[in-house]
Amino acid sequence: MSHPPGITTSDKHRVVIIGSGFGGLTAARKLKRANVDVKLIAKTTHHLFQPLLYQVATGILSEGEIAPPTRIILRKQRNAQVVLGEVTHIDLANRTVDSVLLGHTYRTPYDSLIIAAGAGQSYFGNDQFAEWAPGMKSIDDALELRGRILGAFEQAERSSDPVRREKLLTFVVVGAGATGVEMAGQIAELADHTLKGAFRHIDSTQARVILIEGADAVLPPMGPKLGGKAQRRLEKMGVEIQLNAMVTDVDRNGLVVKYKDGTTKRIESATKVWSAGVAASPLGADLARQSDTEIDRAGRVKVLPDLTIPGHSNVWVVGDMAFVEGVPGQAQGAIQGGRYAANLIKAELRGADPSVRAPFKYWNKGSMAAVSKHSAVAQVGKLEFGGYLAWLAWLFLHLIYLVGFQTKIITLLSWARSFLSPGRGQLTITEQQAYARTRIEQLEEVVASTEDDEKAS
Amino acid sequence: MSHPPGITTSDKHRVVIIGSGFGGLTAARKLKRANVDVKLIAKTTHHLFQPLLYQVATGILSEGEIAPPTRIILRKQRNAQVVLGEVTHIDLANRTVDSVLLGHTYRTPYDSLIIAAGAGQSYFGNDQFAEWAPGMKSIDDALELRGRILGAFEQAERSSDPVRREKLLTFVVVGAGATGVEMAGQIAELADHTLKGAFRHIDSTQARVILIEGADAVLPPMGPKLGGKAQRRLEKMGVEIQLNAMVTDVDRNGLVVKYKDGTTKRIESATKVWSAGVAASPLGADLARQSDTEIDRAGRVKVLPDLTIPGHSNVWVVGDMAFVEGVPGQAQGAIQGGRYAANLIKAELRGADPSVRAPFKYWNKGSMAAVSKHSAVAQVGKLEFGGYLAWLAWLFLHLIYLVGFQTKIITLLSWARSFLSPGRGQLTITEQQAYARTRIEQLEEVVASTEDDEKAS
Repeated sequence: MSHPPGITTSDKHRVVIIGSGFGGLTAARKLKRANVDVKLIAKTTHHLFQPLLYQVATGILSEGEIAPPTRIILRKQRNAQVVLGEVTHIDLANRTVDSVLLGHTYRTPYDSLIIAAGAGQSYFGNDQFAEWAPGMKSIDDALELRGRILGAFEQAERSSDPVRREKLLTFVVVGAGATGVEMAGQIAELADHTLKGAFRHIDSTQARVILIEGADAVLPPMGPKLGGKAQRRLEKMGVEIQLNAMVTDVDRNGLVVKYKDGTTKRIESATKVWSAGVAASPLGADLARQSDTEIDRAGRVKVLPDLTIPGHSNVWVVGDMAFVEGVPGQAQGAIQGGRYAANLIKAELRGADPSVRAPFKYWNKGSMAAVSKHSAVAQVGKLEFGGYLAWLAWLFLHLIYLVGFQTKIITLLSWARSFLSPGRGQLTITEQQAYARTRIEQLEEVVASTEDDEKAS
Repeated sequence: MSHPPGITTSDKHRVVIIGSGFGGLTAARKLKRANVDVKLIAKTTHHLFQPLLYQVATGILSEGEIAPPTRIILRKQRNAQVVLGEVTHIDLANRTVDSVLLGHTYRTPYDSLIIAAGAGQSYFGNDQFAEWAPGMKSIDDALELRGRILGAFEQAERSSDPVRREKLLTFVVVGAGATGVEMAGQIAELADHTLKGAFRHIDSTQARVILIEGADAVLPPMGPKLGGKAQRRLEKMGVEIQLNAMVTDVDRNGLVVKYKDGTTKRIESATKVWSAGVAASPLGADLARQSDTEIDRAGRVKVLPDLTIPGHSNVWVVGDMAFVEGVPGQAQGAIQGGRYAANLIKAELRGADPSVRAPFKYWNKGSMAAVSKHSAVAQVGKLEFGGYLAWLAWLFLHLIYLVGFQTKIITLLSWARSFLSPGRGQLTITEQQAYARTRIEQLEEVVASTEDDEKAS
């Protein structure tokens, strides 16, 4: 049977997957040998290895190393197609998914649906903070932050006003989860080592890095022992840690922190990073409007033991979008959820009984965070360890999970460069990034006077 | 003597360099051991290895590999400082340079001035073309083009309209100089090899790549023999070459070409690249307003035999901004000009007589262009050669001129990946780039209807 070019028809079981993160990509790959038609709809063209995003933001890795195109990864999987578009609505009754690309809305029917649309940054109702304290959820975020961090040093170098200079050299990371700890550590290393001696009017090692956490410990889910280890290591690197501290306001020039003891303090800072909370994709709320699905405060879907939603045994929600007791919002949860859903689809197409599904079981492989060069903390079962050994484990595990052999090699080299020397290979920022805040600054802070360079600098 | 922090004073001879390209960076480095104060003012934070920009645009290299931060390169050169800012005016009478950063204007005095501000793209009076046919002069340009090229394939994959799909799969490169030839070749390789099989509704190998040139040959400055070689190689790769063809209009959906025989044709194309002409920095015109300096039609300064301007033996103009008979607008011209100016400054500070300067002599090391994987054309003196040997020479030369040992290693690996396999490591585009034209497309081309995916795709 021949088809006109560009038209494919199929009577196969149609699996639609939403999202190209760990959950969605794993599900698609697991369906490789199944007699199904897979459509993976995602709003980015790449699969993002989110745990290393902070290394793109701080100049160690290039975006290409952690974000290969999804359609290249799935190129040889002939039963899968990758579709660019942002999913705006799921119609559970008619079994269709609407996605939008460049003003066109496309409707895609499904027989089985795996929703793995992830989570974005949550500002706990203060979305206006986002402009001044970007999150760390996408390649766009990481490159924006790279531009802001390096741009702040550049502006400080040219400023003759000591107050402005101090503001520019104060970096605040909000939230001391893994991403916050890693960002704070990397900004400190950037300032203390990579940029050391590169400026003439400022001393980059004098930059302040402040890590703010609402709970009473660093890395709260990893427990007091590892949290304490990470905290001591960060403090040794000069990171100032403020615990029991809630951010109540963020603006262009700084932020306001309220402490548990009732006191309030303003910190002047040009560059803020938000890693304090997550909000699941709004598609969870879309499901809740049409079914008995419940969502929690973070917008996560309270799934059934088989990761489906009530009344729709053909609709799975996996990864950061799903709330499952005991499953953390990490890569492993998404990977195992995606694999579980794909395996059920395969088994039931082969005749397994959908009414007797074995519930999803999460295998906790542990969690880890790289605090600095050569130092990490790790938790595997009841085993907790930190330091160099944990860092080697971190290195090894992240490397094997990276997609593609050549990417592993090039990433290993990028790491060798940054771990063995202060050098980093990806400190480039675009002109747009270097001058990103030009218009805002001009609007709010134009100083018409001409400064004499010899005096000013 | 101690200075307040952030203030340096000096009675040393003050050399100001404008631009961090090949000319400016070479001049700064050559002054390493001179008893001078060097200020290098540049509008980007990086030194750009412009000959490899097309590889960033087509996904082979990351921006970090070809654009290391200038201040990291010059970190250990204690007599040099790098200053971020865009130079807006040179005051020859008072010997000062004005530069702007974030609304502040800074005035920097000089004793000697080396102007190496380079050239931008020229649209020959049609600057409105720039929006639809970006040039290839900066990292911003390269990343923008990467987004447009890969985004066009993505949009074509989702389009059900054959006319629109054809427009999206037609890539036009205007100007068949080295950059145009390299871009056309790389887009063809991207479509024919890297992206082959990655789409399901389009065949990327069916993409058209059209190279348009106003002269009667490809690579006009390299002569008919090498131009013919390059042309045949490109045609073998499927690139359509149109010679004696002038682009008279460019818009969102295509461009209009007028041929020497008087006929006119419109080509429908979503993605256009402009590499047809250069216009020197407007600082040349700024000099002409204040002195007897003359500029040519491209805005280049007609320098004296010692590369200075009339009446100002302490002001050098080097690189793409200068017009010197027999010196092409290439890296070598800028490198040799920057070195010459720095050497004169050093010699005259040691007592050499400024009135008997030996004129600048350009040593033509030859020129080359990489047409495709494993194929280049090269000209060294009277020797002209093409093919694999020329490509090896191209590889070797570009590698040794890259700044930094580690960059060379990582670039060599990136090249190994792309030359030995169809894979490319830097195909990532940001969401902003993937949807860059969303708003424009929405404004001009909203299709309100919902397409049924099964029909549409």
